[in-house]
Amino acid sequence: MRRTLYNEDHESYRQTIRRFIEAEVVPHYPDWFEAGQVPTELYTKLGELGVWGIEVPEEYGGAGIDSFKYSAILTEEACRAGVNLGAAGVHTELCLPYLLKLGTEEQLQRWMPGFVSGETMFAIAMTEPGTGSDLAGMRTTAVRDGDHYVLNGAKTFITGGVLAGRVIVCARTAPPREDDRRFGISLLVVDTSLPGWEVGRKLDKIGLKVSDTAELSFTDVRVPAEDLLGEENMGFSYLGQNLPQERLGIAVGAYAQAAAALRFAVDYTKQREVFGQPVAAFQNTKFELAACKAELDACQAVVDRAIEAHDAGELTAVEAASAKLFCTETANRIIDRCLQLHGGYGYINEYPIARLYADNRVTRIYGGTSEVMKMIIAKDVLG
Amino acid sequence: MRRTLYNEDHESYRQTIRRFIEAEVVPHYPDWFEAGQVPTELYTKLGELGVWGIEVPEEYGGAGIDSFKYSAILTEEACRAGVNLGAAGVHTELCLPYLLKLGTEEQLQRWMPGFVSGETMFAIAMTEPGTGSDLAGMRTTAVRDGDHYVLNGAKTFITGGVLAGRVIVCARTAPPREDDRRFGISLLVVDTSLPGWEVGRKLDKIGLKVSDTAELSFTDVRVPAEDLLGEENMGFSYLGQNLPQERLGIAVGAYAQAAAALRFAVDYTKQREVFGQPVAAFQNTKFELAACKAELDACQAVVDRAIEAHDAGELTAVEAASAKLFCTETANRIIDRCLQLHGGYGYINEYPIARLYADNRVTRIYGGTSEVMKMIIAKDVLG
Amino acid sequence: MRRTLYNEDHESYRQTIRRFIEAEVVPHYPDWFEAGQVPTELYTKLGELGVWGIEVPEEYGGAGIDSFKYSAILTEEACRAGVNLGAAGVHTELCLPYLLKLGTEEQLQRWMPGFVSGETMFAIAMTEPGTGSDLAGMRTTAVRDGDHYVLNGAKTFITGGVLAGRVIVCARTAPPREDDRRFGISLLVVDTSLPGWEVGRKLDKIGLKVSDTAELSFTDVRVPAEDLLGEENMGFSYLGQNLPQERLGIAVGAYAQAAAALRFAVDYTKQREVFGQPVAAFQNTKFELAACKAELDACQAVVDRAIEAHDAGELTAVEAASAKLFCTETANRIIDRCLQLHGGYGYINEYPIARLYADNRVTRIYGGTSEVMKMIIAKDVLG
Amino acid sequence: MRRTLYNEDHESYRQTIRRFIEAEVVPHYPDWFEAGQVPTELYTKLGELGVWGIEVPEEYGGAGIDSFKYSAILTEEACRAGVNLGAAGVHTELCLPYLLKLGTEEQLQRWMPGFVSGETMFAIAMTEPGTGSDLAGMRTTAVRDGDHYVLNGAKTFITGGVLAGRVIVCARTAPPREDDRRFGISLLVVDTSLPGWEVGRKLDKIGLKVSDTAELSFTDVRVPAEDLLGEENMGFSYLGQNLPQERLGIAVGAYAQAAAALRFAVDYTKQREVFGQPVAAFQNTKFELAACKAELDACQAVVDRAIEAHDAGELTAVEAASAKLFCTETANRIIDRCLQLHGGYGYINEYPIARLYADNRVTRIYGGTSEVMKMIIAKDVLG
Repeated sequence: MRRTLYNEDHESYRQTIRRFIEAEVVPHYPDWFEAGQVPTELYTKLGELGVWGIEVPEEYGGAGIDSFKYSAILTEEACRAGVNLGAAGVHTELCLPYLLKLGTEEQLQRWMPGFVSGETMFAIAMTEPGTGSDLAGMRTTAVRDGDHYVLNGAKTFITGGVLAGRVIVCARTAPPREDDRRFGISLLVVDTSLPGWEVGRKLDKIGLKVSDTAELSFTDVRVPAEDLLGEENMGFSYLGQNLPQERLGIAVGAYAQAAAALRFAVDYTKQREVFGQPVAAFQNTKFELAACKAELDACQAVVDRAIEAHDAGELTAVEAASAKLFCTETANRIIDRCLQLHGGYGYINEYPIARLYADNRVTRIYGGTSEVMKMIIAKDVLG
Repeated sequence: MRRTLYNEDHESYRQTIRRFIEAEVVPHYPDWFEAGQVPTELYTKLGELGVWGIEVPEEYGGAGIDSFKYSAILTEEACRAGVNLGAAGVHTELCLPYLLKLGTEEQLQRWMPGFVSGETMFAIAMTEPGTGSDLAGMRTTAVRDGDHYVLNGAKTFITGGVLAGRVIVCARTAPPREDDRRFGISLLVVDTSLPGWEVGRKLDKIGLKVSDTAELSFTDVRVPAEDLLGEENMGFSYLGQNLPQERLGIAVGAYAQAAAALRFAVDYTKQREVFGQPVAAFQNTKFELAACKAELDACQAVVDRAIEAHDAGELTAVEAASAKLFCTETANRIIDRCLQLHGGYGYINEYPIARLYADNRVTRIYGGTSEVMKMIIAKDVLG
Repeated sequence: MRRTLYNEDHESYRQTIRRFIEAEVVPHYPDWFEAGQVPTELYTKLGELGVWGIEVPEEYGGAGIDSFKYSAILTEEACRAGVNLGAAGVHTELCLPYLLKLGTEEQLQRWMPGFVSGETMFAIAMTEPGTGSDLAGMRTTAVRDGDHYVLNGAKTFITGGVLAGRVIVCARTAPPREDDRRFGISLLVVDTSLPGWEVGRKLDKIGLKVSDTAELSFTDVRVPAEDLLGEENMGFSYLGQNLPQERLGIAVGAYAQAAAALRFAVDYTKQREVFGQPVAAFQNTKFELAACKAELDACQAVVDRAIEAHDAGELTAVEAASAKLFCTETANRIIDRCLQLHGGYGYINEYPIARLYADNRVTRIYGGTSEVMKMIIAKDVLG
Repeated sequence: MRRTLYNEDHESYRQTIRRFIEAEVVPHYPDWFEAGQVPTELYTKLGELGVWGIEVPEEYGGAGIDSFKYSAILTEEACRAGVNLGAAGVHTELCLPYLLKLGTEEQLQRWMPGFVSGETMFAIAMTEPGTGSDLAGMRTTAVRDGDHYVLNGAKTFITGGVLAGRVIVCARTAPPREDDRRFGISLLVVDTSLPGWEVGRKLDKIGLKVSDTAELSFTDVRVPAEDLLGEENMGFSYLGQNLPQERLGIAVGAYAQAAAALRFAVDYTKQREVFGQPVAAFQNTKFELAACKAELDACQAVVDRAIEAHDAGELTAVEAASAKLFCTETANRIIDRCLQLHGGYGYINEYPIARLYADNRVTRIYGGTSEVMKMIIAKDVLG
């Protein structure tokens, strides 16, 4: 169905991104994949292109466009080319909303230039070893000492954690209250060059190989109090607010991966011959591709509707959960089927379908597992 | 997500339909179910309500609204109440487009009053015993004899075939051409009270019990030539034109059945206790309902987008096939899971979930099987 | 794979059953289906054939063969012919073990002749309206009054409840103990001709049309105390003992239904032509049939192993639950796919695949739902 | 269900293997995983343990046991420990049958000592870049020149291709005959130290990281004619003969991976806490584990039956295809669900479930894809 989501401006942005990826990413991608990391220049080049600043208000050097669509296009184009752009999504989709919503004028003046140029990439550190999604059980502490917080603890699963220049760290600044387990968490936007900040091992993941996912540890890191984001002790309440956007972003990503997978499978099966005819000539191939296409169309209907609702400020937590659950579960099946159509080549990382398969698996887990999505939806369904 | 599909007029129509169904259908439904047929008065009452005339131009006694939305609402409300309205969809969604597109002024003046009032229900007879979807293999013949066609042959799977006052019969009026197997089929809008028209057995189906599905046989039925619809021998080309709407209607129906199933499952599991707590209190129940809700949301996104496209005259055959394939396959799974949550009661026809289960199964088959949908989509995907 | 389960005696029994079904069941089946019940003569004819007495000790007129295999063959052959034999499984697989295990010499002398001849069919009544699987919540009471119990209450979902001559009724004979909710239930083998015994409506089910599933109600039914089965108040403990066999029987039934479905689909697709070739010539048909066959082979491996274990007295409750869960869920998918290959005919009850589809759905529910099976297995898996 | 497959000898062998893996593999596995290869000493140590010689006749230094069970145990134990043993399966399950069946006395005397000791690992090279499963399209040639064959061409997807001392290479020694496309292929057991033998890049795969899968290229490799295996030009007919065993081995491997996955998931969910209770305490976890267990039981029933049939010389190609199709498809789903229960840790290669997930995916592809299995089964089903 004709997508009504994007207008000419969007499509022209898409072309810019597509050309950039073809010229600046695809040729180097095998090296980055091997290295397990994108180079920092990728981030500054994307900054030059204006990618990071789209949603940043003009007074801080951005384009001031309040829309998720450009971010969606970036995701779609990366997936289309069978690559991923490191921690791009973390920078804009996850961190930016916190900064814009909670940052003071002074903070934004300090942070935004580096944000927009891509010289200072941002990441966010919530999860700790052993606590998972249970944020109230957090053990990292930030103790006030004069005009600093002294940060101690450890985090894990931090996407972009190796290359980030600043990380929004969730830490306990006061004990929980008896009537409010969530009280006492604060957000600190920590400069990663401070003494005591240590990047532990980069985690070896099934996929997302170019995205640096790290363990972090903090030993008496002295964070200036002016880097406190929002009110002290109120961090927990902030954390939930951006979840719909984060999940929408994951839904869009899963959709885009599935769309790419289908495109790769169509190309592969048309060109590859077995028993004297193209794989695409077999009825099973046709039916598999068609079944994938119908499910992909449904994903597109879901994400397009959700993006419009989000841009209109109407996307609820439940709706975002539903979109994430549906798109990630569906994309997973689509990609698996498209890989199968590649035969043995589908298992070789040289082929983008193999990387998509490995990358995609985590979408059912991060940003809240499918199980957590079901809890959220069920509460709403049962009233 | 807030549906943007319907405006206030639509919602007010919905309320009218809902009240009608609650008052005039639900109380009598067990009797109709037992009898295996709705009474003809149902059709005339719906006519009085204005249901049949919505898309009929004002000059023929209708409301002249060119939109599929009212039809969708009728379907949604019937499913919501756990009933079905006999061959309502056949009358408006299947037959009306042929009549309006191909009928002459004279024919419409003759036919539309009965159509709008519900005194003359219409049906369409394509399938023959043994030929299935292969329309070109049709064996029913209509031989011109003066100002009549003499009709001989048999049809099967004719929904509404018992109660219809007129049936659009596809018959061969000339042999196929060597270069065009499709040549030679004509459409006759046959008055079912003519001599030689015989309604064979009503088919005993898994579900759709109140919908009369019949075998028809024709022995020298003399059909006035003025009841020829469209051009002689060109019938085959007409038949494809309404398929997108027919399939959209089935997709909407499947969505509406799934929505109803979820509603029934929520109600049942909240009220029914086992081991001292409501079934809805179990995590498995919650997760099942949530998984169904996310898939249902996707169906809604798909049908809403498709209805808008159809009203805008843009819904392609491929898009309709994709919507039908996705919604019917998905609804099937949703309804199955919702039935399971009812335990043993889900198997008893007294409970609407049981009837929905049995009714829904055919949506993956009629209007073109899922396999046929895949053929259509695959041709498009592979270019 | 060659089944090692059956020897020559079994295969000769199979031939006897097959001939009987072809001669005595198949020709009349449409009438029984229409009537919603098998005739009582079916049961006495099966008695003459020796079917009911196979596992009954010789001293009570049976063949004294302690094996489930004959029962499995009966199920396989009925499914193969696309019919079902009313409440046959209830008589032998469900009721007989209770009678043999708990019946006194006197009782067996009284009951077994009618059991073996099929003149007295047995059924069992556990479930009550509103309590489902929660047997401890039972509300039917049997109050001792001299040498009788006075029975009051109601039961539902009683397979065979219309035609049974005796029904094993679970009733409360004493209040539950604080430390043992299960105490106080007794089993009475009630003569259904007693005053106050009332057969309520036959439940209208999705499938199993020839199997009479009834509601029963009891108003001051005076049951002779000599019809108490086992010890008073200890009924609950007995009830669990036969569950492995009951579930094995359902697993075998589901397997046999799936095997029959595949056979019907193979026959249908080989003979039915579309677009000028047999449906079986399409790759999609081949792949669907093959996928079903591999799953069917797995079901066969599971049931064969379980039957051998059961005959050796080794089948545990957990293993039976696993076999039931796997076979019923798998058979459901197989039958659905085989129906789909029949196109529109798959939806018409005249075709056995349609009846199999409707019959099979309840196997995931009765004898303990799939969810209950998972509870049982999970307890074992998690230790 | 109690497995009847293994006797005391087998279980004692299992203990030996288990201890070996725990002592000699598990501690070093992270290094091997990082290196993308097992060390050659692993193979010689396994040789010392007697692993390679079990099925080798005593006259060539083996134990002369004609049974697949020991091989199955090796697989089961490796999976259980979350490791894999490089190309172990290729050596014994794939290559050995060819050698034993086709090798001359002289050849076996030459080759078997190295085979049994593990000093000479064997691999087999069939697939070529661009031909996939279509063996008749093979382009590698071996031209007779005096008492040598001159080998030219390339192969890909060669498991064990880097470390192998000898590789069974399929090459064309004569053009295909008009009436027999399969004529003209020969098998050469090539010494990999010969000049012109080149190991190309090790393929970077989604999983099976310690298993060296290589591209090979041959430039005028002069292979002594005495290394021809079987008759010249008859190679194609040999190739099919071992497919049932190869597929059985893959089915067993998939089963063993699924069994290990379930074990890891049980352990993880029992020990890991969220929201104050173990993950295993949630009903969803229990139901997922139970559903996996029932499917795993079915896989076990399938492989046990197939192993017994194979040891009895009765396993047909169709049965092996059915077992492979069922076990690999089912194991894939089980492992996916077990990974999901691990949350984010399931995506980290440090956890064995992540490696199992990545390893397992290829089982639906190699040894013949699921689609090829369906072709084989369909031919049999449709008769």
